[in-house]
Amino acid sequence: MRFSDRMGGVRRSYIREILKVTSRPEVISFAGGLPNPDFFPVAELAQAAAGVFESSGQEALQYSTTEGFLPLREYIAARYKDRHGILADPDEILITTGSQQGLDLVGKVFVNPGEGVVIERPGYIGAIQGFSMFGAKFHAVDLSETGIDTGALDRTLEQTGAKLFYAVPNFQNPSGVSYDDKTRKETAEILSRHACLLIEDNPYGELRFMGQGLPLVRAYMDSPSILLGSCSKIVSPGLRLGWVLAPREVILKMVTAKQASDLHSSTLAQHILHNYLTRFDVDAHIQKIRAAYKLQRDLMVQAIQENFPKTVRFTEPEGGMFLWVTLPEGFSAVRLFDQAIEKNVAFVPGKPFYVDGTDNTFRLNFSNSSPERIREGMARLGRCLTELMD
Amino acid sequence: MRFSDRMGGVRRSYIREILKVTSRPEVISFAGGLPNPDFFPVAELAQAAAGVFESSGQEALQYSTTEGFLPLREYIAARYKDRHGILADPDEILITTGSQQGLDLVGKVFVNPGEGVVIERPGYIGAIQGFSMFGAKFHAVDLSETGIDTGALDRTLEQTGAKLFYAVPNFQNPSGVSYDDKTRKETAEILSRHACLLIEDNPYGELRFMGQGLPLVRAYMDSPSILLGSCSKIVSPGLRLGWVLAPREVILKMVTAKQASDLHSSTLAQHILHNYLTRFDVDAHIQKIRAAYKLQRDLMVQAIQENFPKTVRFTEPEGGMFLWVTLPEGFSAVRLFDQAIEKNVAFVPGKPFYVDGTDNTFRLNFSNSSPERIREGMARLGRCLTELMD
Repeated sequence: MRFSDRMGGVRRSYIREILKVTSRPEVISFAGGLPNPDFFPVAELAQAAAGVFESSGQEALQYSTTEGFLPLREYIAARYKDRHGILADPDEILITTGSQQGLDLVGKVFVNPGEGVVIERPGYIGAIQGFSMFGAKFHAVDLSETGIDTGALDRTLEQTGAKLFYAVPNFQNPSGVSYDDKTRKETAEILSRHACLLIEDNPYGELRFMGQGLPLVRAYMDSPSILLGSCSKIVSPGLRLGWVLAPREVILKMVTAKQASDLHSSTLAQHILHNYLTRFDVDAHIQKIRAAYKLQRDLMVQAIQENFPKTVRFTEPEGGMFLWVTLPEGFSAVRLFDQAIEKNVAFVPGKPFYVDGTDNTFRLNFSNSSPERIREGMARLGRCLTELMD
Repeated sequence: MRFSDRMGGVRRSYIREILKVTSRPEVISFAGGLPNPDFFPVAELAQAAAGVFESSGQEALQYSTTEGFLPLREYIAARYKDRHGILADPDEILITTGSQQGLDLVGKVFVNPGEGVVIERPGYIGAIQGFSMFGAKFHAVDLSETGIDTGALDRTLEQTGAKLFYAVPNFQNPSGVSYDDKTRKETAEILSRHACLLIEDNPYGELRFMGQGLPLVRAYMDSPSILLGSCSKIVSPGLRLGWVLAPREVILKMVTAKQASDLHSSTLAQHILHNYLTRFDVDAHIQKIRAAYKLQRDLMVQAIQENFPKTVRFTEPEGGMFLWVTLPEGFSAVRLFDQAIEKNVAFVPGKPFYVDGTDNTFRLNFSNSSPERIREGMARLGRCLTELMD
């Protein structure tokens, strides 16, 4: 088989390989990036589906427009207005097959082979994979507890003239870090000055369970930008529905690219989601998720403090699903993983989130584990760390 | 906005533009490529959905594997064995977001910019769009009533060394043509000899309503090939589910590419489809579709014979959804379209199905019109043709 050159540059997902090892039932795993299925609105979505089949079954089962179901786009536009004061026209919204497809479409529509894309360090692996397919050359800029290193961002854009900056400013995957307000403002100013296009990915924005909500980076921009959203973390990832908010000229190109990609996203899933959002109280639902995740996050932070050596650092996220651990220089999270899996506890080593192979970090997911498993898992992991660092 | 170079080479869909004009309620349109929604199994899919939410709601709403829902892949493998004698392992099947995503993944995994892809002339527009995204250089080989011109295929492969051949051997879109058995055998021999990879797309294969069923081209191949399938024409396109059957090494690459494209296809849609297929009699359902489409096709053929000038040629498909009309040399189907739309009748001019701009052909869809509209529409179109050719 003569595969394309682009497939040579794309790594097979390390996380997928890890998830195979960690799926054994005796393993307490914090490796996956899954929302907690106990908080999927199963009964409500069942009613929504029944309603859709009852009222518009033929339409929901037919081909539909590439842009997506108009009432769903109208709902999303109205919600952006309510929550962020963003005045978006439904024609500036494109429904995608999950947020991942938003990344694929950004790659298709913007990235020529060899062109520069600035990403966070560590960075979201789905974006690295998505843009890799189109030959992006990555420039990674360090992320700290307050967000992207704006000095380094400025220098990187100066030196590389990179076309795009991909950012997850709220509760980033993998680090759990959020940009503070000053960093958001500076980021916007730097991007505008360099005419660098912001791709702002906000899948976790609604999952803030403590601290002060902040404006999106785009709110501070003088120039147009692209915002990616998703229903995966607030309703259900199995529907595979996300969206892109972008200027009309970008949406037009993306529609052409999406047509070539999958024609349109599942009509049925779009109708069910719209029915659910308009019939049930999604805000009350999100409130339930927030309360549960806060409890799980607090427990994990407390258990880490009790069990991990003091030289191990970790983030204390105010929302989202992940927490990020940094070992002292010289220690390997991949080695720790091998020891941990022997004790039936798992996480994702940080390596795949870097384009340069850094190995002293790892990601813990707190959204998909019960309090008991979090306590027991952190105790086991603490013992592994003590052994490793002894 | 600085878009990627690849977007310059991709035409905005002409068909989409046409469908806007033809969607006015007073227009009798044969332009769309839609299956007849009267034959969607709405009540059965509603029961299937209820069953899924009842028995496995959390699982159906969660992230899942990129390969797709294993029981669905097992069902597809078993059906290939029953109907085609193909021994496929479920690991050789990848569930895609419609067959269109199969084309996108073929492009991602195989096509380097400038590499040759042989297509049928006229060719399926979704494939032209899909492969265009990856810089394919198209070589079009004429299609006649018996299938691809095998002499021309042989010469084209000899001259260009093209890597892929994309074919729709059953009831092709747009022409309605099927390859006869001799052409299938010769095609397989030629492709094997040139080490050209066959991409065999079979969305309409189950919609044969007359004539003798024939083996897939792949059945005659000595070398591996790729088969695309879809539930869009036999169950529902709104589920957006198709699949790829390919050797394991290809599936592995495609899984990596699909992960970067949309992670996986809708878990919910996959569970609903599987529940439907295993609980209800899909073969009886397909039989109903076939009977209805045959009636509509027969009526259209008869109405064409009664209303069109005798110098106008047309295909008489034994299945599928489309019929193809060829005007005598020198007449323009685009001009005919303008006249037809004034008489409130519509079709798709053939131009977008050629990479060279041929303009004396057009496509008629018979699956999505009632007998009354077919009779009235062909009468109107006959008058337009008489005027145009007078």
